[in-house]
Amino acid sequence: MSHVPGLIQSIERSSAVLRLLAAGPDRLRVKEVADALGLPKSTAHSILRTLEHVGFVEQDTRTARYRLGRGLLDLGSAGIDANELRGRALNWADALASRSGEEVRLGVLDDGRVLVVHHVFRPDDSAQSLDTGVRLPPHATALGKVLLAYSAAAEASVVAGGLEPYTRRTVTDRRALARTLTETRARGWGLSVEEWRPGLAGIAAPVRTSGGLVVGAVGIAGPVERLTDTRRLARPALVDHVVAAARSISRDVAGS
Amino acid sequence: MSHVPGLIQSIERSSAVLRLLAAGPDRLRVKEVADALGLPKSTAHSILRTLEHVGFVEQDTRTARYRLGRGLLDLGSAGIDANELRGRALNWADALASRSGEEVRLGVLDDGRVLVVHHVFRPDDSAQSLDTGVRLPPHATALGKVLLAYSAAAEASVVAGGLEPYTRRTVTDRRALARTLTETRARGWGLSVEEWRPGLAGIAAPVRTSGGLVVGAVGIAGPVERLTDTRRLARPALVDHVVAAARSISRDVAGS
Repeated sequence: MSHVPGLIQSIERSSAVLRLLAAGPDRLRVKEVADALGLPKSTAHSILRTLEHVGFVEQDTRTARYRLGRGLLDLGSAGIDANELRGRALNWADALASRSGEEVRLGVLDDGRVLVVHHVFRPDDSAQSLDTGVRLPPHATALGKVLLAYSAAAEASVVAGGLEPYTRRTVTDRRALARTLTETRARGWGLSVEEWRPGLAGIAAPVRTSGGLVVGAVGIAGPVERLTDTRRLARPALVDHVVAAARSISRDVAGS
Repeated sequence: MSHVPGLIQSIERSSAVLRLLAAGPDRLRVKEVADALGLPKSTAHSILRTLEHVGFVEQDTRTARYRLGRGLLDLGSAGIDANELRGRALNWADALASRSGEEVRLGVLDDGRVLVVHHVFRPDDSAQSLDTGVRLPPHATALGKVLLAYSAAAEASVVAGGLEPYTRRTVTDRRALARTLTETRARGWGLSVEEWRPGLAGIAAPVRTSGGLVVGAVGIAGPVERLTDTRRLARPALVDHVVAAARSISRDVAGS
């Protein structure tokens, strides 16, 4: 087999596996894939397992044979839907609420807004309203900044729709928003301070699939004086809790 | 990003790149892909170049932005058509004919037969007829054995169609054929000795894409006493010429 220098061999091989499965009318065994591509069986198995993991191939549980997966027909989705994401996040969101003492939201981008797919109340006895299903403005919230930071397409669409001011601190300038998103990517978490509601701040971090695709954001929200210090900077201990929760959810999403 | 042990990270990442390109309405720059997946720009570039190479993404030459490639819509093809394969093979087939002193054929599987897509005459002045476009029986020819050896689906289909005897040496038993194909894979080249036409032998080797997919076979054919020794085994010097030609064509196919 001829490997081209500078290209990634396992990706070349995985494309060959997909073409092989697509070409034949029948499902193939690991050994048949290995034979066809001149690979050791263990290598073919690793490639097939990875392709199965990302949804591009499926294994028949009865015959152990492989075929193309539905993920290839539905490439535009992230390979995980909001319900599944929510399921993976439930326990970690509860833990984050206990550790931070603040309310927790899990959000996904949906049609240019942040759709809240899970909400855990602040662990005190205060009156709170469940806002699962609510849509939040992405440029004005920590969850939204995280989601925009990893999607150039979503950023462009939100900017094109106009950056509505919710408070006098809302970022309404497209260049200022771009700088904020660059900063968010660089540090790996997002912050909003009184940009959506006066007196409120948020800290959020991205949830990623095993390939690195950002499929959601998890964050805490609460009074600005509890989430930030006197210079209006996020409190490091809270950032650590949020980032750790996002990593744990990502691990569960990746392992699913 | 959470990498799952035992899975191949670059394949996970490439699936994330494909999903990312599929999700957005716009074409993406390398940097946007890198930002979205939290990868260094050089890593994102390697993944994109490899995906472009295998036809899964395309780059707009004017804007340098990437989008999904037509290869994803046409997965069942090998990503290279017979004309392109022939173009890559022309010079190498000529060289093989000169070095071996025998006629050379390039074949691809087509509907259960070996379709000859290129034919170079034996380099002497004997009368020969061009058989480009001719279909040969796969189980009875060296080209065919090579093509069947790397395609379990084609083997099953040929066996199901019945193994017609062309000479008293044609392999007509499905288990005997399976053993021959296993042997062909193990040594990396195929041999047929008076299995199609009395007095004629053939030696062939596979042409592969960069991912290892066998997309054709190239081989020589000639009098059994020139191609084999007194024990009817292939002459090693000729095998070396055939295998070297197949590798050269594979390199050109891979680099295309």
